[in-house]
Amino acid sequence: MPAYAVGHKVPDSDSICSAIALSYLKTTIGEETLPARLGELSPETLFILDKFGFEQPELKMTFADTDGIYVVDHSDRIQGPDDIDDTTVLGIIDHHKLGDITTSTPLECWIRPVGCTNTIIKMMYDFHGVEIPKNIAGAMMCAILSDTVIFKSPTCTTADIKCVEALAEIAGIEDYKALGMEMFTVKSSVEGTPVRELVLRDFKDFKMGDNVIGIGQLEVIDLALFDEMKADLQADIAAVKEEGDRHSVLLLLTDIMKEGSELLVASDDAALVEKAFGKSLVDGKAWLDGVMSRKKQVVPPLQDAFA
Amino acid sequence: MPAYAVGHKVPDSDSICSAIALSYLKTTIGEETLPARLGELSPETLFILDKFGFEQPELKMTFADTDGIYVVDHSDRIQGPDDIDDTTVLGIIDHHKLGDITTSTPLECWIRPVGCTNTIIKMMYDFHGVEIPKNIAGAMMCAILSDTVIFKSPTCTTADIKCVEALAEIAGIEDYKALGMEMFTVKSSVEGTPVRELVLRDFKDFKMGDNVIGIGQLEVIDLALFDEMKADLQADIAAVKEEGDRHSVLLLLTDIMKEGSELLVASDDAALVEKAFGKSLVDGKAWLDGVMSRKKQVVPPLQDAFA
Repeated sequence: MPAYAVGHKVPDSDSICSAIALSYLKTTIGEETLPARLGELSPETLFILDKFGFEQPELKMTFADTDGIYVVDHSDRIQGPDDIDDTTVLGIIDHHKLGDITTSTPLECWIRPVGCTNTIIKMMYDFHGVEIPKNIAGAMMCAILSDTVIFKSPTCTTADIKCVEALAEIAGIEDYKALGMEMFTVKSSVEGTPVRELVLRDFKDFKMGDNVIGIGQLEVIDLALFDEMKADLQADIAAVKEEGDRHSVLLLLTDIMKEGSELLVASDDAALVEKAFGKSLVDGKAWLDGVMSRKKQVVPPLQDAFA
Repeated sequence: MPAYAVGHKVPDSDSICSAIALSYLKTTIGEETLPARLGELSPETLFILDKFGFEQPELKMTFADTDGIYVVDHSDRIQGPDDIDDTTVLGIIDHHKLGDITTSTPLECWIRPVGCTNTIIKMMYDFHGVEIPKNIAGAMMCAILSDTVIFKSPTCTTADIKCVEALAEIAGIEDYKALGMEMFTVKSSVEGTPVRELVLRDFKDFKMGDNVIGIGQLEVIDLALFDEMKADLQADIAAVKEEGDRHSVLLLLTDIMKEGSELLVASDDAALVEKAFGKSLVDGKAWLDGVMSRKKQVVPPLQDAFA
């Protein structure tokens, strides 16, 4: 039986591309590993896979029948496979805060405070001296451009920038910023998409104290794209909150050109959210100037407020 | 304020030498970091520090007043500083199962299934292109020889062996195996040492389900050294169990030449321990042939038995 590399629920481009890139690396060094996904792919991820000629990874929700899993792009139990206790966690490759996955045997963890899991996977290729195939380099590069919002996110580090430059060279892509903008234009086409699909497109649950907080994010090249649908989005995050028995659901509408986010909030205690960001909500909304990163600018203040 | 590198409670040679080696590396790349220790040092560790000209790291139990900590050689809350929640965990460098430390911000984790934390720290030096000073290389090498029982432990990997060879060359040590035996002879001098000191010399608490299980280990070059004191050791682990409100206390008396361990047990439910190892206890004792590693051969079966 092979091992699997699997990212978080509601997979984003980093989760999928890192699963593909890690599987190739592990298989090349003699550990047969396949990529898996825990859900449907976003238009952005489909664009990347199509661009570089990849099939979608296998949709696989249970891993008890495998040789173990490499957890990529998360380390929180709530975000990963539900049957994680029935398999062996062989390793974790991630760039977020350290979550609550524990193991009963030694494992391999490559966790770095960088902008993207694929930047770390590039380090793993270098460590093992394995050449990155052209198409895998392209997919890894796009995942980094996505996670770092073409280097604009405060999560972006010099390691990410250098990595993109190196991967662009391997992939033979001259103008990677143009490709990044093309990708974000695909990501920005929200018109005609069902509201629920938008809310859940890049959605993660976090355990804060005894509460579950769901946080979604939509990154677009122009916030005006949401003008017609904002009321519907607000109604829907309230519904997602109730259905999932969550304390709060937040949706970040991030304008990557203006470099800030409009925050939509549905919460049992909105004052806590106001406290976290030092901002009053008006009609359940607030503009957070300069806020582009859920990981670095949204989760930590919320976690402090809930502590 | 500097950051600190700190190993586990009841520090062993790996915890101390990795704190020293990591502090030098971090300081060299521009992050001022100091080594700390959470307890008294064993004769083996004192031998290493003396051999290579190091002072004992600062005895420091609280870290709220620091710039953060690098956790080395463990990732379990129960084994680390009690006030870990009052500081920032900047990173974890470890070679054990993944424990229950979590963070609220991204961090750096270098965790590998190898025999010793110092083997991983060597990888970090290589990654950063920092030259290892001669005396630090010597201390790192001794820590690896200690943790891998001069390569006899089943935890030993080819990475550990290669790392010892490289460090021996840097340190200018020709016969590292002879130095290893000298070190284990120091470790074996148990005569005249108070029984409690022996029980706690290399002692770790583990959380298994809702229970705390303490497991000590003494590695000697000849098990006969314990002949006169075995009854006292058994009485004392029973006392340690009661005093610490533990479910069980196990003491492994490891014979590094015979390559096996005598297990002494004090437990609220000795049948669970018997089940874990598939061995009956006679007078609270059992010989476990080939068992040399607490991490690989003792903790996992116990954890399964307690699951």
